[in-house]
Formats: sequence, C-alpha cells, structure tokens
Amino acid sequence: MMAILDDIRARLARTFRAPEGAFSFAVSGTGTAGMETAVANLTRPGMRAVAIVTGYFGDRLAQMLVRYGADVTRVDVEWGRACDPARLEAALSGSGADLVTMVHAETSTGVLNPVEDLCRIARARGAQTIVDAVTSLGVHPVDAAGWNADVVYSCSQKGLGAPSGLAPVTFAPGTFRLKAEGRRSFYLDLQLLRDYWIDRKYHHTISAPLIYALQEALAVVEEEGLEARWERHRRNHRALLDALSALGLDVLPPPGERLWSLNAVKVPQGADEAGIRKALLQDYGIEIGAGLGPLAGKIWRIGLMGSGSTQENITRLVSALEKLLRP
Amino acid sequence: MMAILDDIRARLARTFRAPEGAFSFAVSGTGTAGMETAVANLTRPGMRAVAIVTGYFGDRLAQMLVRYGADVTRVDVEWGRACDPARLEAALSGSGADLVTMVHAETSTGVLNPVEDLCRIARARGAQTIVDAVTSLGVHPVDAAGWNADVVYSCSQKGLGAPSGLAPVTFAPGTFRLKAEGRRSFYLDLQLLRDYWIDRKYHHTISAPLIYALQEALAVVEEEGLEARWERHRRNHRALLDALSALGLDVLPPPGERLWSLNAVKVPQGADEAGIRKALLQDYGIEIGAGLGPLAGKIWRIGLMGSGSTQENITRLVSALEKLLRP
Repeated sequence: MMAILDDIRARLARTFRAPEGAFSFAVSGTGTAGMETAVANLTRPGMRAVAIVTGYFGDRLAQMLVRYGADVTRVDVEWGRACDPARLEAALSGSGADLVTMVHAETSTGVLNPVEDLCRIARARGAQTIVDAVTSLGVHPVDAAGWNADVVYSCSQKGLGAPSGLAPVTFAPGTFRLKAEGRRSFYLDLQLLRDYWIDRKYHHTISAPLIYALQEALAVVEEEGLEARWERHRRNHRALLDALSALGLDVLPPPGERLWSLNAVKVPQGADEAGIRKALLQDYGIEIGAGLGPLAGKIWRIGLMGSGSTQENITRLVSALEKLLRP
Repeated sequence: MMAILDDIRARLARTFRAPEGAFSFAVSGTGTAGMETAVANLTRPGMRAVAIVTGYFGDRLAQMLVRYGADVTRVDVEWGRACDPARLEAALSGSGADLVTMVHAETSTGVLNPVEDLCRIARARGAQTIVDAVTSLGVHPVDAAGWNADVVYSCSQKGLGAPSGLAPVTFAPGTFRLKAEGRRSFYLDLQLLRDYWIDRKYHHTISAPLIYALQEALAVVEEEGLEARWERHRRNHRALLDALSALGLDVLPPPGERLWSLNAVKVPQGADEAGIRKALLQDYGIEIGAGLGPLAGKIWRIGLMGSGSTQENITRLVSALEKLLRP
C-alpha cells in the first residue's frame, strides 16, 4: 500500500505538472474536501482574500473563505463568461490581498478561466493562489508549475475517470510551512497528511479500493499521454459543437472561454428544458445536467469527460436530441 | 442512488439503535472524518468540554476539541483501564461542562468504557455527549437511544466489514438546530449534509462504490442479526483468551473492561515483540498491531472484527504464535 501511495504521488505530480518539491497527494474525500483542504490550510482569520466568482464553484470557494475567517472581496463575473484579468488587477490595486481563489473550469457555466494570467497578476501583487481544477485535470492543460499556483485541487471521477471519493491536490513548496495555531481541521491538516503520505505516520485509514482505482486511472491517463488526452477532449468538444450547430444549437460561453469537458448548451426558445432532459434519461439512458442558479432553465450541461469523451457518445446524444427537438 | 441512501439511513438507525427522529447517515470520509463531523458541529469557541482520555483516540478527540476552540478539561485514565464514572462525576462537579467526549471501544488499549453510565452522568449535569463507536458498532451492543447520546460515530470497515472510506454517524434530534455562525467546515456541515441526504440538495458527489458496499455490509449485519453478531464476537473473544492462556498469555484490561473486537495481549517477558509480529506477517500472512504511545513494545493488538471474527482465524493465529514463542 505504501508503494502504491508513493506511485500515486509521483503520477499526480506529473498529471498536475507540479513544480519540483511540491506535495502532490489525494485527500480522503470528494472534490469539495479537496477545496476545503486548500482553504483550511492557506486561510487565517483576518486574512484578505479575493474570490473570483464565475459560477457555482467560485461562489462555494468564497463561502469557504468566509467560514475560515477571511475578509473576502468578491469579483463577481456574469455567469457564462470568463474573468477578464483586468478585473482581478483592479480588485488587487487597492488594498491588495493575501490570497486569490479561482476556478479553472467552471462546471456550472462551462467556462474556462485564464488561470495563467490570473495567477501571474496575483503573484505580482504578493498574493497566494488556490486553483480549482475539478473539471479540468486530465481534460485541459493543467500546469501547476507554469501557473506558479500555490494549491491546485481536483477530484478522482471527472477527467481522471476513477470513482469519486478522493481529491487529488498539489501544494507548491513553501505553502506547507504552516503555524500550528491556525490549523482548525484535523482531518484536512496538511502537516498531518504529509506525515501520513510521506513519513508513514498513522493519520486515518485510507480507502484501499479507492486508492487502487485512482492508481489505475492515473496509469490509464499516462498510457494515453496527457497531450493526447487533452487533444481527444478538444476534438470531441468541437465535434459536439459542429453536430449541435446543425440542430441550430449553440453554447453559452464565447469562443476561447469554452470547456472541452462540459458544454453549456443554450436551450432554444420554446423547448421543454426539463422534459427533454427527462426523456433523454428515460428513453435513451443519457443523463445531462440542468442549469444552476441564474442559468436554471436556460442551459443544458453536457459532459464529455474522461472515458465518456467519445464520438460514439456524441452521435448517440445528438441523434436523440434531434428526435426530441423535431418530433 | 437516492433510494439506496434512504435505505442506508434506515439501516444505520437500526444498527446504532438511534432514537426516533435522529439523523443517521454516512460522512464521505473515514472514521476520523466522522469524529470531526461530531466535534465540528457540536463545538463552539469558548465552550467548556470534558474529554475522557483512555487512549489514543480519546486523546485525538481532545485535540480536535482544542482545534475547534473549546476550553478542554482532560480526564486522563491509565492506558489499559476503563474510565471510572466517579472520575467524570468529579470533573463535572465543579464548573460543569457543555460537552463530554468518550470512546466506547478504545482501539489503542483494547478497553471498553461504561458509556451508558458516562452519558447518564453527563446528561444529569446538562452536558451534551459525543461517543466514538469506531471499533464497537456491529461488535458490542451500541445503543444510541438507550445511552441518550447526542452523537455516535463509527467507520465502515471494522465491525461492519465494508471497505474504509465512509463514517456512519447518528445525531440525536435537537443536536442539529445549529446556528450558522459557528459552523466552520463546509464539507462536514451537518445542515448541508441533511439537505443532501434528506432533501436531495447537491452538496458533494458521493462515492457510489463505497455506498454500494456499505449498503451490502449493513444488509449482512441485519441478516446475521445484531444480537447474534454481538454474541459471535463475544464467543470468539473468549475462545481466543482461552487459547492464549494455554500459552501463558493474558490481555491487559481486567475482566469487564475487555473489547471483543480488539485484544490487547501483554507481550511476555523476553519475547521479541516486533520480531514476532514481523514473522506472523511474513511467514503466516497474519497481521497484528503494535502497542501505541505508552503501550509501545508492551502489547500486541489482535483484531477479531466483522467477518474476521472466526474460530478458524483464532486457530491459525494461536498455532502460529505457539511456534514462534516456543521454537
């Protein structure tokens, strides 16, 4: 088991493209536990944080920062658009911030944020950065070292294709020189997790089947090759968009801000948004997501992630949608 | 999946013997996440807590209380002995307490604590109670309603026999009328977890394979019957003790304070404690635990839990031990 954990650390470091000396491991919980591990270990009461909110998960990060006592400034962006780096620049130009949080791939809106630019701006102003890569790891280029991000976290089930239940995380060197007083969570305490993953000191009883599955999923990712995997996701996203445009359908985010893993399709005028989702599930065995928050009723969210990103799935979905939209 | 979660709630309520109206569910993490869910949702900064420390896990509870801002009084008991209820009575007789934590089955010492008496004393003094049943659920009689405990938590892998990764928990009615300000953890927030498990409001992506396994493990427990399962563990514990006594070996806790699931065997004078554990693992494929903390080098910890509590396992272990102790 210890050898498997070492192998997972090495594979995650490569998959995150983590910098030399980073601590890459998997939190024993879902992606939200990964998010809370990042926030719990980087936030101190009274710290000034800027939360870039481009959707549901950016908002969740802002909520967690508040819970951990940060003084939070929100940069609220219209749902369906990426954050213009000038917005972050403006937010930091005044009193500055100690920490900036952002979501690489916003699952709720299908939007890709310009994380590299955002991290560069944050770092230039002396702020640490937390990047949510839940819906991008294994799908879009994730480059923790190139971004110079302090923490990047993800989940086991989306782009990686393992069952949910583990949250891959990478902490850059220097982020884990923590003072004991500030650390509230025991379960998510980075020092205790390092003691466990690296020094084999008991902390919790890791879930063996989830660990075996994650190791295998990471091996599959590396067999395909990261670049080839990104290209497969990009190609299938484009194929879906082409097929949808023949039905007169388009996605919400503008070109250049679109996820390859999650396609936020605008519901056409007069279509029965919920009825079509229900029919897809009941009659065709295809589950797509509804819009959240301000996008409820306005978009369908179509996932093409990991082993689900195939031409066959696109053909199945589009032919079903065609029948339902033009009966 | 929602029907499975409902079934798990009902089965856990019966397995914990939870009172009417309790919220019984599984936290998406290991037993330590269950512990932290109890502490995070019942503790407020400045609250007065009494932590009964009869071993490693009682100490972990005390550490968590401190992290969540409680003013903690420890009742430290000699490792290898249960807590005398008079010790708790004395600790509460002065300034009282808002919360008392205790471990039903101390995995580190093999000791069973008199939880019913301890909970009665705490309640009489107006204190809430958290009971760790990690190594007792499905093994020893656990009776959340009869104890009148506020929170009881466990794990999925020990007495229940599923893989690790989920933490069954039961909160008594009234414990979950929480004020928002005090709730620091988002991942372990009881209100959000109730919204998810009961009202189907998204909170996190639960691990499907762990949920399937827990449901099946709970079905196996109920097929055997709780009382029959307790009796099997009691009978096999007695059989192990009889076999060990023929080798001149005895357990550390006195009669009446001994776990059926975890046997803390005193290492005899002159025996090579670590060498014998290593030989058991390498030559016989049997893993037993070492002593922790003040008991390091002094005890072996022999687990007989869930499907592992069998006469066959006892025979295998004792015959191997006999060869190693009397070569």
